[in-house]
Amino acid sequence: MNKGFRVGIIGATGYVGVELVRLLSSHPFFKLTRLVSQSYAGKPFSEIYPAFNRVVDTMLSGLDIDQVVSDCDLVITALPHGVSASVVPKFLERGVRVLDHSGDFRYRRAAVYEQAYRLRHPCPDLLGEAVYGLPEIYRNEIAKSRLVANPGCYPTCALLALKPLLQAGVINTEGIVVDAVSGVSGAGRKSDLAYSFCEQDASFKAYGVIGHRHTSEIEQEAGFLAGLSQPPLVTFTPHLAPMKRGMLATVYADLLPGTDASKLQDLFAQTYENEPFIRLLSGGQLPETRSVLGTNYADISVFSDDRTNKVKIISVLDNLGKGAAGQAVQALNLMAGLKETSGLEIPGFAI
Amino acid sequence: MNKGFRVGIIGATGYVGVELVRLLSSHPFFKLTRLVSQSYAGKPFSEIYPAFNRVVDTMLSGLDIDQVVSDCDLVITALPHGVSASVVPKFLERGVRVLDHSGDFRYRRAAVYEQAYRLRHPCPDLLGEAVYGLPEIYRNEIAKSRLVANPGCYPTCALLALKPLLQAGVINTEGIVVDAVSGVSGAGRKSDLAYSFCEQDASFKAYGVIGHRHTSEIEQEAGFLAGLSQPPLVTFTPHLAPMKRGMLATVYADLLPGTDASKLQDLFAQTYENEPFIRLLSGGQLPETRSVLGTNYADISVFSDDRTNKVKIISVLDNLGKGAAGQAVQALNLMAGLKETSGLEIPGFAI
Amino acid sequence: MNKGFRVGIIGATGYVGVELVRLLSSHPFFKLTRLVSQSYAGKPFSEIYPAFNRVVDTMLSGLDIDQVVSDCDLVITALPHGVSASVVPKFLERGVRVLDHSGDFRYRRAAVYEQAYRLRHPCPDLLGEAVYGLPEIYRNEIAKSRLVANPGCYPTCALLALKPLLQAGVINTEGIVVDAVSGVSGAGRKSDLAYSFCEQDASFKAYGVIGHRHTSEIEQEAGFLAGLSQPPLVTFTPHLAPMKRGMLATVYADLLPGTDASKLQDLFAQTYENEPFIRLLSGGQLPETRSVLGTNYADISVFSDDRTNKVKIISVLDNLGKGAAGQAVQALNLMAGLKETSGLEIPGFAI
Amino acid sequence: MNKGFRVGIIGATGYVGVELVRLLSSHPFFKLTRLVSQSYAGKPFSEIYPAFNRVVDTMLSGLDIDQVVSDCDLVITALPHGVSASVVPKFLERGVRVLDHSGDFRYRRAAVYEQAYRLRHPCPDLLGEAVYGLPEIYRNEIAKSRLVANPGCYPTCALLALKPLLQAGVINTEGIVVDAVSGVSGAGRKSDLAYSFCEQDASFKAYGVIGHRHTSEIEQEAGFLAGLSQPPLVTFTPHLAPMKRGMLATVYADLLPGTDASKLQDLFAQTYENEPFIRLLSGGQLPETRSVLGTNYADISVFSDDRTNKVKIISVLDNLGKGAAGQAVQALNLMAGLKETSGLEIPGFAI
Repeated sequence: MNKGFRVGIIGATGYVGVELVRLLSSHPFFKLTRLVSQSYAGKPFSEIYPAFNRVVDTMLSGLDIDQVVSDCDLVITALPHGVSASVVPKFLERGVRVLDHSGDFRYRRAAVYEQAYRLRHPCPDLLGEAVYGLPEIYRNEIAKSRLVANPGCYPTCALLALKPLLQAGVINTEGIVVDAVSGVSGAGRKSDLAYSFCEQDASFKAYGVIGHRHTSEIEQEAGFLAGLSQPPLVTFTPHLAPMKRGMLATVYADLLPGTDASKLQDLFAQTYENEPFIRLLSGGQLPETRSVLGTNYADISVFSDDRTNKVKIISVLDNLGKGAAGQAVQALNLMAGLKETSGLEIPGFAI
Repeated sequence: MNKGFRVGIIGATGYVGVELVRLLSSHPFFKLTRLVSQSYAGKPFSEIYPAFNRVVDTMLSGLDIDQVVSDCDLVITALPHGVSASVVPKFLERGVRVLDHSGDFRYRRAAVYEQAYRLRHPCPDLLGEAVYGLPEIYRNEIAKSRLVANPGCYPTCALLALKPLLQAGVINTEGIVVDAVSGVSGAGRKSDLAYSFCEQDASFKAYGVIGHRHTSEIEQEAGFLAGLSQPPLVTFTPHLAPMKRGMLATVYADLLPGTDASKLQDLFAQTYENEPFIRLLSGGQLPETRSVLGTNYADISVFSDDRTNKVKIISVLDNLGKGAAGQAVQALNLMAGLKETSGLEIPGFAI
Repeated sequence: MNKGFRVGIIGATGYVGVELVRLLSSHPFFKLTRLVSQSYAGKPFSEIYPAFNRVVDTMLSGLDIDQVVSDCDLVITALPHGVSASVVPKFLERGVRVLDHSGDFRYRRAAVYEQAYRLRHPCPDLLGEAVYGLPEIYRNEIAKSRLVANPGCYPTCALLALKPLLQAGVINTEGIVVDAVSGVSGAGRKSDLAYSFCEQDASFKAYGVIGHRHTSEIEQEAGFLAGLSQPPLVTFTPHLAPMKRGMLATVYADLLPGTDASKLQDLFAQTYENEPFIRLLSGGQLPETRSVLGTNYADISVFSDDRTNKVKIISVLDNLGKGAAGQAVQALNLMAGLKETSGLEIPGFAI
Repeated sequence: MNKGFRVGIIGATGYVGVELVRLLSSHPFFKLTRLVSQSYAGKPFSEIYPAFNRVVDTMLSGLDIDQVVSDCDLVITALPHGVSASVVPKFLERGVRVLDHSGDFRYRRAAVYEQAYRLRHPCPDLLGEAVYGLPEIYRNEIAKSRLVANPGCYPTCALLALKPLLQAGVINTEGIVVDAVSGVSGAGRKSDLAYSFCEQDASFKAYGVIGHRHTSEIEQEAGFLAGLSQPPLVTFTPHLAPMKRGMLATVYADLLPGTDASKLQDLFAQTYENEPFIRLLSGGQLPETRSVLGTNYADISVFSDDRTNKVKIISVLDNLGKGAAGQAVQALNLMAGLKETSGLEIPGFAI
């Protein structure tokens, strides 16, 4: 196999980082040439994640921009927001294309970012050219871009549920409710007591009930999908379930008068018929997060409630897969001009 | 302790039954005089649940109405719907008061029951006198009734979240969304493949997305709370989380114009200030299901979203506690003229 | 109820501490008069553990010996080893009896402690009078003692399995193997990455494979039970399972020639017939940790392998129950001259 | 890729079957030409396991020997013991090589099988030519055999731990203890109440404490490894942990006099230096089951206890990976003359 494209990961030991390593280490065309970790520089990757013994023993290195530039054709940054914005420009200046996992380049308007993240944006000028890395919306732009902002997990899950409806203009863009649940890995690799096994297992809770950052990200893209000049206001509530991976969003919206509810299934089928990673369920089937673990698939069901005239969409994905690393590889394939599904045609664990 | 009241449980080996046995076996005033189980008649209760060795070794018996009548002052029926309706009248006829766990006596109108449960109701005449066993609404009626219908777990969780708002008339009664999550025990003691460990663990899913029975139960009581002649239409979606016990509802409603969102916390505080089992959280605290496991408490937080003018209520309880057996004991205390909290002032497991 | 005995807990917010609070808050005769926590002094206990809202809202205080002495008839110290030894004498000097949870007073010989814990013992003189708090062995001594050392969870689980055999002298005291498994709470309330949900869930591992401290504790008491002048050498391996609570030990020993294996069940039955908290299983039944969660029970099965002439004992308990807080309450009952089972006749969760 | 070898799976919807499908569907050289399932014949595989939608939608068929023979170069039978023995010969007669997952062909002597499985063996003549499919022992024989018996999960885990010691003759072959733990999937795809989520989660137990079938399998191969005419007697205890997948064995043996314990690490290193799937840990590192999930690796640590002169080996694998389907693919690679690691050089989930 021609392992032509050399890829580096900045922030390789976080949970998104390790899933990127898992997917890229067995990718037919990408070659992992540099794994950067400030905390573990000098240690082999497999010492941090023994699951990778003999599979990825690559030595972790500190962040040396010049080194990375000379070793990599593409760079993936999996860094905290704010940090990314300070690192990404250095790669772009040197002509290296970047796929970034933080929130720093997901917004078209700096003001929205600054309100959501309570940070001054160091390079707002880049927001104009950065592409929101959701292939099901920006496939062509991603292919050409030198800076792709990988979407958040919740926005991906919610937007895939809303896209057919917003584009067809069949729902009221006001009053949309996104009620979503994530596995604990969504919180990242943390040693907080709050994320310890004894505090998390066998329990369920809501968090970030008012003003969660992903709200503004959902709203921005929902607005674009609906062709609105102003983004709609979305009500979003994230929850944490006692499982490592997996995400489910239950999305509620009001059908506009005159919408034929019986046509919703067809609408979704048409919208996604050529999408390799969207699996539309039918006949009352309901998605389960276990069916997408470790994959880049999103499984979606749509239902209409004739009594209330509301539409309900159930959308599931792996918060580390289609919600993060899997989606990143899908975008990378596009950036590299490869088949979009390269290295992603793998089944997850059924059990 | 005067163990004056003799209680019998019909259906003692299901998950609701065993939780009733756990709570009543250590209750200061009730005495378990008969445990009925058709499937395990002739075996000691502790053989089915070894956790009860030396604590409750009572022999299980088949259903012999006369025996039960002679042994018990009160009977709790924990039977499948349809079955309950055929058994309950036999106890009432013989002058024994009943607390029933099925859906058979929760409705005031037979038509609503028959549509929700797809069953002909065998004794609709009893629906007039049966009392919906939610003490936070029907405390006095429960005390006097000879037939109490223990509410469903989802309706309890949702109605406790909605009561202050509906009674105060500050929300639009249309457009209410109840998005709820239950532990697996809510499905009962099943040997279905679907509920096996390998099919349930580490996974999250929605179910009963359209037309779940509890919808009509929530609507009936929401209508009464709001003083409406016709029940409002509620959008309800239940989910299953990989945990044994616990329930969380996230309830969404639109505040009516002129409502002062800053007063919502006070409204809830006033409504529940004298309620022994409702714990209102404040200051942005969020409830977790683990904090109510094994108890009769419901922990509730209320939030308003100034942007969307929606109110969000997060309500948690133990589906086998306040959602079933705990609530039953609370009602039993009332029926027996005891202190409402008798035998329920116990902490759950924090870990 | 006469809540005559005033009890204080030093270290009330660790996992052993919170289980002590759970058991003592509903105890008929003990009264929790002081909860000490250096880290959370000034906050109500229920702020750290919301499960206790309205049940135990007691304010946590820092450690003020005089205060504690004036408020408490008995003190429970749940502190790290080394720390305990520096605090306990201060209470004894002032005439307050102590039950200590650390390893500091479990050993009869300072040298053994110092090798196991790699610490110089500050008050070896107390080791002579301290009593090993396993009621099934030292019932009478505990009742009279002013310093009781609560046993470790693994030693409790192993010694209850071995006692009948060692006392009867039917096994070879050399070559005993104790293979044991604990829930994660055994590691304490930790914010280490190693104990985070994502690193612990769905995984199983061994730890402390060579030289775990509890080995020497098992050996000391096994030696006493066998009436040996020198403790036997025991091979011990602890493991961690993905669950919060619960412990199981599988103990292996060689039957001495001439031992009638068919009499083992009787031997165990005779040894434990009057023990309120030892539940001996028979007829091939096997214990499960879920049957003892939240209780002070230990469930035990004994088997002999005719082919290998080995005896296998399976012993389960709750590492926070009979393995820690439950056993402490049992000892406290004895120290206070109460019925040994007071406040402990409660069923656990079956589900 | 040349997908030259056509493989059929008889019993494709059990947990071993689905893991075989997962591994073979992404294998570079094998082609799944037939998936047989009596219970689901006529349905697409992905209907039973939605995780495989778009990945493996192959139609399941009933068992038609001639069809299978005409479609497959190799057949994998994943059937209950007893059933396998009645099906396997039909393929062999028609010249199709078979890899069998049951216990039917793992024994060299029918008497041992018949005692362990309480069944009359229908074709004992085949036991002579069947090869025990553990590549780390029978690599060459597997390559040439027309009938390979895939080993049990526990025997694989135990024998990999024992092989270096037994071959070097440094341990006493009597008195070996194998204490092992499995994830629940080891019990198969069952709808028994005993394996339901609520009965299994958060609990740990032993089972098959006396006379578990795998004991005789471990003994047979341990005897061969030690060059004994009579198999040694092994003490084996299996346990069930609340997790889907993963297996750990803690193996205890007595070092023979004169054995230099400090050389054990070297002995294991030499024995396994060229083994692609055995990862020997060193420096006190301990294996965790999560590090091998979804892979064909076995991670092993060896320790000696100078006080007791015992050696302890900790061995972990995925009961569905190296313990079943992974090992089968490794053997299949050998049978097909492919690189032994083909299709198995994949990392598992680290999270």
